Amino acid sequence: MDPFMQAALEEARLGLAEGGIPIGSVIVHKGRIIGRGHNRRIQQGSAIKHGEMDAFENAGRQPASVYREAVLYTTLSPCSMCSGAILLYGIPKVIIGENRTFMGEEELLRSRGVELEVLQDASCVGLMRDFISARPELWNEDIGE
Amino acid sequence: MDPFMQAALEEARLGLAEGGIPIGSVIVHKGRIIGRGHNRRIQQGSAIKHGEMDAFENAGRQPASVYREAVLYTTLSPCSMCSGAILLYGIPKVIIGENRTFMGEEELLRSRGVELEVLQDASCVGLMRDFISARPELWNEDIGE
Repeated sequence: MDPFMQAALEEARLGLAEGGIPIGSVIVHKGRIIGRGHNRRIQQGSAIKHGEMDAFENAGRQPASVYREAVLYTTLSPCSMCSGAILLYGIPKVIIGENRTFMGEEELLRSRGVELEVLQDASCVGLMRDFISARPELWNEDIGE
Repeated sequence: MDPFMQAALEEARLGLAEGGIPIGSVIVHKGRIIGRGHNRRIQQGSAIKHGEMDAFENAGRQPASVYREAVLYTTLSPCSMCSGAILLYGIPKVIIGENRTFMGEEELLRSRGVELEVLQDASCVGLMRDFISARPELWNEDIGE
């Protein structure tokens, strides 16, 4: 597996081990991870710390020039909030672990010129499928349902 | 002024007094403020704590049924990240202080059925106009430019 998607998957597994929703993300600039994170809804009682948002937060304040050369990796198709953050900062490319268990705002992102690559990685799918079947109420809460 | 927009404006002024970007927001459910917040980029070195995001965070984990009856007030037209959060949680109505100094994703929100009201409030406009002219580099950073 791509080492950056591997890092995002490690974040997702770390979240699961903490009792959280297993979604992870890393932001890569010039071949280096500048921010990594995972969903913290359960751990921090957070409504905004999706995996991608946590990665943005942990990357800290970056100049626009960095975001515009960055690639965001996420184990799951990004929801509207995370897609909005991707658009806000002008991230040009997003690598998505899978979109089988949840389809985010891929159409919107593509329509705004963001390049997407969907891996349909079996580990990413398995992690979410198991979590959703074990804790459907937590998953629904996380996607506003 | 509407007391809820007044509360959002107080949040914006609180942010300014802290040395931050003066944008505030409150989330109202059944006539009661359940979350309030302001932009924390400078104060917390945060890339994700826009005023609306901070209000979502401070409202904590809410059931979908609450979001679907909530009204979000924000002193400034919501950017793509904050608009994405509004869509994620299915907030049906957003009251916007002004969109003269920054036009956010109002078209996208309307196209998804969100009701918007733009007040063009002179206090909201003045607060942002003064800030942008005093600290253009901070403002540009906040909108990914």
